[in-house]
Amino acid sequence: MAGIRDVAAKAGVSVGTASRALNGTGPVSAAARERVERAAKELRYVASYTATALKSGRSRNIGVILPAIDRWFYGKVVTGIADELIDVGYELALYNTQGSHEHQEAVLGDYLWRQRLDAVIPVSLQLSAAEITRLLSMDRPVVGVGGPMPGVLTVSIDQSATGALATAHLIGLGHREIAHVTGGTDPERDFHLTDSRRGGFEGEMSRAGLQVRDDWVLRSDFTLGDSYRQAKVLLSGRERPTAVFAASDEMAMGVILAARDLGLRVPDALSVVGVDGHEMGEAFGLTTIRQFPERQGARAAQRLLTHLADPPPPDDINLHEVLPTELVVRSSTAAPGE
Amino acid sequence: MAGIRDVAAKAGVSVGTASRALNGTGPVSAAARERVERAAKELRYVASYTATALKSGRSRNIGVILPAIDRWFYGKVVTGIADELIDVGYELALYNTQGSHEHQEAVLGDYLWRQRLDAVIPVSLQLSAAEITRLLSMDRPVVGVGGPMPGVLTVSIDQSATGALATAHLIGLGHREIAHVTGGTDPERDFHLTDSRRGGFEGEMSRAGLQVRDDWVLRSDFTLGDSYRQAKVLLSGRERPTAVFAASDEMAMGVILAARDLGLRVPDALSVVGVDGHEMGEAFGLTTIRQFPERQGARAAQRLLTHLADPPPPDDINLHEVLPTELVVRSSTAAPGE
Repeated sequence: MAGIRDVAAKAGVSVGTASRALNGTGPVSAAARERVERAAKELRYVASYTATALKSGRSRNIGVILPAIDRWFYGKVVTGIADELIDVGYELALYNTQGSHEHQEAVLGDYLWRQRLDAVIPVSLQLSAAEITRLLSMDRPVVGVGGPMPGVLTVSIDQSATGALATAHLIGLGHREIAHVTGGTDPERDFHLTDSRRGGFEGEMSRAGLQVRDDWVLRSDFTLGDSYRQAKVLLSGRERPTAVFAASDEMAMGVILAARDLGLRVPDALSVVGVDGHEMGEAFGLTTIRQFPERQGARAAQRLLTHLADPPPPDDINLHEVLPTELVVRSSTAAPGE
Repeated sequence: MAGIRDVAAKAGVSVGTASRALNGTGPVSAAARERVERAAKELRYVASYTATALKSGRSRNIGVILPAIDRWFYGKVVTGIADELIDVGYELALYNTQGSHEHQEAVLGDYLWRQRLDAVIPVSLQLSAAEITRLLSMDRPVVGVGGPMPGVLTVSIDQSATGALATAHLIGLGHREIAHVTGGTDPERDFHLTDSRRGGFEGEMSRAGLQVRDDWVLRSDFTLGDSYRQAKVLLSGRERPTAVFAASDEMAMGVILAARDLGLRVPDALSVVGVDGHEMGEAFGLTTIRQFPERQGARAAQRLLTHLADPPPPDDINLHEVLPTELVVRSSTAAPGE
């Protein structure tokens, strides 16, 4: 395998010039750079990034920490991040805490230090103030996805507005008896997200003078299966809602399956709206608030890369960036049947 | 932040001894090792793995290359790998080719070399002979997930047997008019997988003296939505099958949704069986062949770690390891209705 010496010899420059040209770590003439790059290409020279990292202090490695990877939202966010990074030659170091606080501790306390990461993207992590301080003490750019964190650059949708938008859609259609499937039982999820969407629901109900019934707020775990089981109980009751707002599309699809199993037609007997824009929603005719998680991941990566290239002055930093969502109306919502 | 010198001073040993004790790179007495480890812990010393990697040639970093991360199978495989690695302090470098051959080229030709990876796990990649040669020329352990690759350690289920098992289940129930939803239109998927499952279906049909109708083999892309649309056309035809074997649970769920939309009761008018063991399948009552992808990922990581700790002699290597699957019978399959 060709080394930097071979490249320098072939290009007719010193090793130092070849190194500066390839690593962008110092001044070098355009002509020399071109010769070095051609030589490197011809020799199939690939720098050892481990060695380069030691010298430049840059590893071109971004750490992504998340509580799960086998869930729709996280898979999409990581896809968005990976897509941005691959094009600029950055690596992605994945840390899956699996919702375990012990793993999160290990990652924040040790893993992140060991590998020289240029920057870190925590996704939907519930971090304590001490953990945030520790993360920021790495003195590397941090951009979070999922919700505001004190002192940290973040990218997310407005969770509360999302809940309000979904609820307003149902109220606008004439619904007054509205149930909500929220999160809260899934240790892998950030509670703020769930609470914020629920807050949006409650706020909108209250504005319309409608009552939120405690027994019509189902605490689920963001899975289709659990929501399905709970919705079956809810919809089998003597009194039942004419509409359900579920805090995720998977949970909304669970409600639709439960309704169908009970012979309740959607939307005639029950309107259902979710949040996500899950691909599967289309076959269910699911009305939803699309949240484009790939864009959230991509935007976080872009902010990091910008920051690495040219750190903005502290005052200039818009800490929390809110990305837009979109109401997609399909066939699962309509005016309540008589 | 404490350096190796501080640790050595506190432990009362030389820097060389402290380094050997912490990195396991040479002989050191048990007593010295214990003192060094205690000192490191008290000082919250964390080795720079970049520096350690240069010296030891080990980065404790495993590369995982896959064609997508936002699909059920891949999310589960990565979860299984990450779970094994986090406990032993290995890092996971994620390379998502997004099904782009250009990205795959970049990863194999450049990315993998740059970072010093201890080992590589390609997941369901369609690699050419040249690409496999290049991968093996890194002289690092490689364990693939998804199917046999010439000369490479691999872990997977028996795709053909899976297709045969699902088909035999339907035939055993008395079905003779059986359709198949296969893959083939998704560039992100390994074609071998699809062809092998389909081969199992065709073999079992043939053994039972049953005919495979070309117009009843739907080429889909492993998504619920596409299978739903295609199944709607199939099931609206004048002649229709009494059973469908779909090569994935998502596609099987698409068939069930299509049947319901057309007023066909499952399983009375149509039996449906899938492959995966997708969590969502339960709410659909879906009969399936569970394939435990987390175990596939975990097993690949275990083989790699064993290999790294103690490389087996070449003759000893069982190149392709087949993991078991499990038929789970739920309510989507039954004897054909009259």
